[in-house]
Amino acid sequence: MASKGEITRQKIVAAAAPLFNQRGYEGCSMHDLMEATGLEKGGIYRHFSSKEELAAEAFRYALNKAVKLRTGHIDGVHGSVALLRSLIKRFVETRSGLAGGCPLMNTAIDADDGNPELRRLACEGLRDWQTRLEAIVRQGIRAGEIRKGTVPRRVANTIIATLEGALMISRLEGTRTALEDARAALGVLLDSIQINQSAN
Amino acid sequence: MASKGEITRQKIVAAAAPLFNQRGYEGCSMHDLMEATGLEKGGIYRHFSSKEELAAEAFRYALNKAVKLRTGHIDGVHGSVALLRSLIKRFVETRSGLAGGCPLMNTAIDADDGNPELRRLACEGLRDWQTRLEAIVRQGIRAGEIRKGTVPRRVANTIIATLEGALMISRLEGTRTALEDARAALGVLLDSIQINQSAN
Repeated sequence: MASKGEITRQKIVAAAAPLFNQRGYEGCSMHDLMEATGLEKGGIYRHFSSKEELAAEAFRYALNKAVKLRTGHIDGVHGSVALLRSLIKRFVETRSGLAGGCPLMNTAIDADDGNPELRRLACEGLRDWQTRLEAIVRQGIRAGEIRKGTVPRRVANTIIATLEGALMISRLEGTRTALEDARAALGVLLDSIQINQSAN
Repeated sequence: MASKGEITRQKIVAAAAPLFNQRGYEGCSMHDLMEATGLEKGGIYRHFSSKEELAAEAFRYALNKAVKLRTGHIDGVHGSVALLRSLIKRFVETRSGLAGGCPLMNTAIDADDGNPELRRLACEGLRDWQTRLEAIVRQGIRAGEIRKGTVPRRVANTIIATLEGALMISRLEGTRTALEDARAALGVLLDSIQINQSAN
């Protein structure tokens, strides 16, 4: 069972995560954090050695939540290309579960010119996503479902780039149009690497 | 001829633009701005009524610079699809001309949860980009170079999303790989809408 200290720590992280995600590291003040957690500065720093440590924990929490929402319960899908389509559909139709949009994109943009620890965590989150998608493509090639010569890294990068860029447009426009456009375009891309099995 | 006041104003904007682009609106302090411009607070506020006004001018300056770098001197390209390929190539090979990456993406992420004026300007910048690309696609359809039924908005959104998302990955990874992958994937997309004219 979690200790009282651990429970408080987790509560602080859960309250801080949407703030950092919406406002960025610099835009999130100690006052904001105190208001969101209902704790004094000393109460927060009893659990975290620095704002950077809290921001890092908050990012881990936010990314974990988004990944679970976007990948959970699709294990039943049969076939690599169908699995990729399901993951794309899920991203297009599901919010990140946290105010402020995708924590990976927010932190990537926020930390690319500084804050090495957040940058490292964003890189790690990106790498995990790439690895998961590449593994699906590789499996599809082995199973004879995806054309030989397809570069798994290229497919993974294109899916991530198109979805993240479309999310940026969608949030700016306040409509889902760009995300639906991304799904259609990625569908064309998947058609182009899929070996036609319509003969059966 | 520009007045002395106008010249100073422009110098402040040029010095502030990379700072806002790298650090975001909240992350850019008055101290940073004073250091970069070599002016006191009063010297800056003689030319701008608020930090928000300066940030808005800095964004316009940054976006204008990026757009010029990424669209200049490609008028000589013949054909709509070739023009789209040239614009994609230029984006992939050219930096934004300003420390901190693409001002549109940075401001979109920075302002999507606040700062209505910056958000409005980012929307406007996005809309301009979409309009330019859509016009090229529409021209290609009229000229019989691009398939009828192609949705110009979808092509425009996909190009923008894929390039911006790939730039995010590239900056995080510190390599050009994701941008090159995006170019290859967008090439496949353009092949799929182009009417084959290889017969001649």
